[in-house]
Amino acid sequence: MTPKEYQYLGKGRRLVEGLDKVTGRARYAGDVVLPGMLHARPLLSPYAHAKIVSIDKSAAACMPGVVAVLTADDLPTRDRVMASRNSAVLAKERVLFRGQPVAVVVGETPAAAQDGADAVAIEYEPLPVVADMLQAMAPDAPLIWPEGLPRAESDLTAAHAAVETEAETLARTPSNVHAEDHFKRGDVVQGFREADVIIERTYTSPIVHQTYMEPHAAVAEPDPYRGSVTIYTGTQGQFMVRDEVARILGLPKSKVRIVPQTLGGGFGAKYGIIEPLVGAVALTLQRPVRLALTRSEDFLTTTPSPACRIELKIGAKKDGALTAIQARVLLDNGVFAFALGGIAATLLGGYYKCSHVQIDFYEVLTNKPQAGAYRAPTAPQATFALESHMDELARALQLDPLELRLKNAAETGDPTGTGEIWPDMGLKVVLETLKEHPAWQNRVTGPNEGIGLAVGGWPCFMTPSSAICRVDSDGTVRLHLGSVDISGVNSSLVLVAAEVLGVSPDQIELIQGDTVTGPYGAHSGGSQTTYSMSGAVANAAAEAKRKLLELASDHFEARAEDLEIRNGLVQVKGVPGHTVSLGELVEVAQTKGGGPGPIVGEGHAAVEQNAPAFTVHLAKVRVDPETGQVTPIQYVVVQDVGFALNPLMVEGQIHGGAVQSLGWALQEAMLYDDEGQLLTGSLMDYAVPKFDSVPGIEAVLVNNPSPLGPFGARGVGEPPITAGPAAIANAIRDAVGVRLTDLPLRSERVWQALQEKREA
Amino acid sequence: MTPKEYQYLGKGRRLVEGLDKVTGRARYAGDVVLPGMLHARPLLSPYAHAKIVSIDKSAAACMPGVVAVLTADDLPTRDRVMASRNSAVLAKERVLFRGQPVAVVVGETPAAAQDGADAVAIEYEPLPVVADMLQAMAPDAPLIWPEGLPRAESDLTAAHAAVETEAETLARTPSNVHAEDHFKRGDVVQGFREADVIIERTYTSPIVHQTYMEPHAAVAEPDPYRGSVTIYTGTQGQFMVRDEVARILGLPKSKVRIVPQTLGGGFGAKYGIIEPLVGAVALTLQRPVRLALTRSEDFLTTTPSPACRIELKIGAKKDGALTAIQARVLLDNGVFAFALGGIAATLLGGYYKCSHVQIDFYEVLTNKPQAGAYRAPTAPQATFALESHMDELARALQLDPLELRLKNAAETGDPTGTGEIWPDMGLKVVLETLKEHPAWQNRVTGPNEGIGLAVGGWPCFMTPSSAICRVDSDGTVRLHLGSVDISGVNSSLVLVAAEVLGVSPDQIELIQGDTVTGPYGAHSGGSQTTYSMSGAVANAAAEAKRKLLELASDHFEARAEDLEIRNGLVQVKGVPGHTVSLGELVEVAQTKGGGPGPIVGEGHAAVEQNAPAFTVHLAKVRVDPETGQVTPIQYVVVQDVGFALNPLMVEGQIHGGAVQSLGWALQEAMLYDDEGQLLTGSLMDYAVPKFDSVPGIEAVLVNNPSPLGPFGARGVGEPPITAGPAAIANAIRDAVGVRLTDLPLRSERVWQALQEKREA
Repeated sequence: MTPKEYQYLGKGRRLVEGLDKVTGRARYAGDVVLPGMLHARPLLSPYAHAKIVSIDKSAAACMPGVVAVLTADDLPTRDRVMASRNSAVLAKERVLFRGQPVAVVVGETPAAAQDGADAVAIEYEPLPVVADMLQAMAPDAPLIWPEGLPRAESDLTAAHAAVETEAETLARTPSNVHAEDHFKRGDVVQGFREADVIIERTYTSPIVHQTYMEPHAAVAEPDPYRGSVTIYTGTQGQFMVRDEVARILGLPKSKVRIVPQTLGGGFGAKYGIIEPLVGAVALTLQRPVRLALTRSEDFLTTTPSPACRIELKIGAKKDGALTAIQARVLLDNGVFAFALGGIAATLLGGYYKCSHVQIDFYEVLTNKPQAGAYRAPTAPQATFALESHMDELARALQLDPLELRLKNAAETGDPTGTGEIWPDMGLKVVLETLKEHPAWQNRVTGPNEGIGLAVGGWPCFMTPSSAICRVDSDGTVRLHLGSVDISGVNSSLVLVAAEVLGVSPDQIELIQGDTVTGPYGAHSGGSQTTYSMSGAVANAAAEAKRKLLELASDHFEARAEDLEIRNGLVQVKGVPGHTVSLGELVEVAQTKGGGPGPIVGEGHAAVEQNAPAFTVHLAKVRVDPETGQVTPIQYVVVQDVGFALNPLMVEGQIHGGAVQSLGWALQEAMLYDDEGQLLTGSLMDYAVPKFDSVPGIEAVLVNNPSPLGPFGARGVGEPPITAGPAAIANAIRDAVGVRLTDLPLRSERVWQALQEKREA
Repeated sequence: MTPKEYQYLGKGRRLVEGLDKVTGRARYAGDVVLPGMLHARPLLSPYAHAKIVSIDKSAAACMPGVVAVLTADDLPTRDRVMASRNSAVLAKERVLFRGQPVAVVVGETPAAAQDGADAVAIEYEPLPVVADMLQAMAPDAPLIWPEGLPRAESDLTAAHAAVETEAETLARTPSNVHAEDHFKRGDVVQGFREADVIIERTYTSPIVHQTYMEPHAAVAEPDPYRGSVTIYTGTQGQFMVRDEVARILGLPKSKVRIVPQTLGGGFGAKYGIIEPLVGAVALTLQRPVRLALTRSEDFLTTTPSPACRIELKIGAKKDGALTAIQARVLLDNGVFAFALGGIAATLLGGYYKCSHVQIDFYEVLTNKPQAGAYRAPTAPQATFALESHMDELARALQLDPLELRLKNAAETGDPTGTGEIWPDMGLKVVLETLKEHPAWQNRVTGPNEGIGLAVGGWPCFMTPSSAICRVDSDGTVRLHLGSVDISGVNSSLVLVAAEVLGVSPDQIELIQGDTVTGPYGAHSGGSQTTYSMSGAVANAAAEAKRKLLELASDHFEARAEDLEIRNGLVQVKGVPGHTVSLGELVEVAQTKGGGPGPIVGEGHAAVEQNAPAFTVHLAKVRVDPETGQVTPIQYVVVQDVGFALNPLMVEGQIHGGAVQSLGWALQEAMLYDDEGQLLTGSLMDYAVPKFDSVPGIEAVLVNNPSPLGPFGARGVGEPPITAGPAAIANAIRDAVGVRLTDLPLRSERVWQALQEKREA
């Protein structure tokens, strides 16, 4: 079957859970109500670094409705090493970042818990704070972990991605640089010697928060007789969080059940931050407990994207051929390790062909919340640096910026920045597509307007996955999965089953399993869900179809291969008059002795290779020279999606990613003062893009089929967030002639740069 | 593998859900609490037949906390035909039996609903009542359905059994005999001509209630936007009840979800009696609604076993060979059809070889609740008649009662009473086993003591079933099933998976699926669950094992067939030193590209033939000649169980069935007066056996393997209830010389018979 012959795939179809979401029926973790459920309120550290001198629970403990005031010593985790944000359930002895949970007050009602929380008196003794990454690297800087970084077995660090960082993390002298790594191919000294032009600049990007619509929330229900706990939560990966909670609480995996609820956004941050705490509290009190963070708590205590500094030097010949790329990358990990430098290196040395590459990265500790994954972690930062640089190279060489990229673009088989080999990839094809696109062909700019380009991309990952496909006696087809929908993936998987089985997607129901009821599936991260799950779903549906046709073969007295299913009816191929419905066949299956049994198909997929996905963004902006305000007025995303199973969902992903990318470019930053106090702890202070600040976004889907993926699909989620900051920076340069290297590109920075340019 | 080599099968193991049950953690339907849940109280008709003149809701409707007072016209079922107890959601125009639901009051609390119910004023106009079966058959009897029995498509009638009754139910002149059928082989006139002895007697048995521990309860939750409803209930078959509710409420099956809860006993009666009402109320009010019947309501409004009258005539030669069996069977169906005569006929003409058989049965309507299935429906009644008769024949012919039965016992290939052919069966082997048993060999009786024998049996049924077996990364094995545990079947299925996989049963978890999450499986009726499900479970486990060994084959660099799993560890056969755990293999499966994928095994079974199971009971009683009180002092059940997968559960089933059988024999009867008023509507009046009235019961398990069943197992649940009444009646005859033919054999009846004997 070729894409042209598909009946359901490749055609836009709306969200399967849309009705639930617009009617408020969708059940998020915070909506879960259990009989006898208690409410927990956390007390977060007001200091970025302090000794806990005393905690006086007495006033709170005797307030009406307060059930318990719990500190680290009260929980089953009391003796466990705190080696990550997830495992730092409650602070012991000292606090290390503003927003670290220190105690939790549990009440019969949310109000009682809050009143209790207000009455707990905690005395702190402030200690010196290392809030800044460069300050943290100074030889005389106070050490965050004077006795070395604590370690526990297999953290979820970098769990969103399959890249091994190879970071040299063991046996180091205590330092705030807890890990570093060095990738090299060729010899950059030689490369720069060959260059006609060398450009060197430093780029910075701030801490950015994932700012999902739904702050973290979870409800934990203990089973006192089994010593087990069930946690209802919004997560991107029920199995991953199950393993994490079990590890942190010291329970066998079988004693932890994670029931994923409808997720109000994750973007890499919903992998077990509050579940260990809620689980520990429920097991301690042996009652169900609910914890839902407020927006400000969520800003303070979760794991945003790390601040990043990239010192970049690139050399090129007159014809544009790159001769050397050298980068020094610093990443601000906050108080615990969360090594991501490997991904930045993969991309910095991987977008373009270049014989001489050297990338050194350093993971730095500061008194800030631990860094975490945010949609294509470190890719926006790395891409901002590299693609701003490419623009400057084009200017210096007086080359067309698109041609310069096309000339150097990496191809299948080329090395990435860490020395891996790119499998089948389509960077050139997206550039060629944009080259022919009217937005590029017919580009015009008025006064103070400019156009910028940037490429972006993501390796995209994969996980072996399974699926069950069952057909009911009314013809309803049910898919039972162990994955979580965060971006319309279920609405695509339904189409996969519909296509394979030949039934309307309306007849297909998808069941999101928990860690007990669901077959193991990919977690929703690394742009892998569709790529990993579709094959499993297709195989499960094919197995169900095989059994149905075996039964129909008896019915029609025809060979199964001569039969087909069209619109839920089986017929002899090309003989549409005489049909039997799937439901009728299932009735037979459920009653016929010696038959094939009820129609249940198991399917799995364990794709051998990832399918990287590349994109090129074109941004047109208008800059107000008086205020520095940048207004995006056109935005085009050309992305290699392999094959869009459900174009509506793919476009939605691209729109969402591009909007977040504009947030990175123009607005978002978590700002901390010198004492490590968060200055942007609410949506009044932390600026995310809104409807009126986003231009129309055109998504151009390039179908460059992946060789191993289901129906040629590739991952879609992460690439669209990568290229925006560079595209916008390049458009500003085009519009008003200033090169900005520090994100976000807010009005005051643009105005300042314009002032400096005028003064120069 | 032979039974002797089994590691887990055939060894007694306690209930997997035992901990939940003894700690009160098991969640029954009545324990379900949903946010915003309302409470429903039914108003049951106080008359057995009456016109509903008026229903005044006004006082109730304005009481605080009363949400609604609903009658038939208020429900979505208002225009549907009421053709069965299940579909008679609320009465319209007239009531037909004492206890028929007429209205329902819904309140915010149970108390508000009850207060409201007390305030509803219903005016009735009593109509003539036909309470008695013989009265109903009189030519001038008032007709229950003057315009003919209402019919709706595919009722659940006889759904507990796979026997087709072939009853001639169409195009009859309106009569209270709504169906009859006539089975014949040979010529009984000829048979009686050949007989040396002919015995003729009439046996009666009353309405008996299933008296499960848990009265009916259900909670229904509507989805207003989909028009669908989810019902949490205690049922024996989630799929069957789903189909029934959908049919009655006029919804597609996909709009009804049945979530089975832990079941507190069913015995044939938990197939959708209250679910249509609860579902209709929830859909009407668009709020979750709970309905839990009180014990008295449950007695009044559910579907007990039918009263039965059997006129039996048997002829035999001097050597004991039966020459003719003739029976006329009357069954009291109550107000709706529930045809069971076919099963009575199967057994009456099927226990013994006989060339001339004629069985005529009549299904009679009366103003009483519709009859329903109760554990081996009509088998205790038919067996009571036949086996009392066989005892009298032995006396008349001066033959050993055991030898008489052995001589005539049917064997594989012999016809049943309806002309079907018995598949592999073991009636002779149970008789031969008892013959050698000390209880028979060394039988001694003191004064007023007697011993009675009776055989019993059940065809046992089967349904195609499926199962999913998943292995988790900690080695936990999960079985996902769509069946319901009513008698420890899950505790046997766990052993099946353990045996096939080679892991401890402690590592195995069983998930009871609902109609959305569970793969289709056999409902728990007809003694079919273990027989139908075990094969599916074994096949699913074998498929999971195959995948595990495929991975282990890589690990050990050995052929999969040279590997084995022992105690959850894979090793090369006979090389126990070097092992890899299932969890480790699953970790590989869940990460290895190009591998077999997560370990999920689908399995199904669609056994081609049923495996009937026979039993012989030996009862020893002591009769107090002054009071007529009968005390069972010894009870032995010899049963062909094929192979006892879990002997502890099988013995438990046999004990339970024998105890219920003693209830039939000595105590239980639902008594109605001439106006159709129930006189025994509570456990104060309706006498079930208690600890102090039951002797020690010895269960002797005969392993006579079924040829097609899993590991040779047969159905176990129903046979043990069949033989008790006859065994006890025969023991009383042996003890004090009186033959009792009307169940139950209460003291006053025995005393009366002794008086008559003394007077004669």
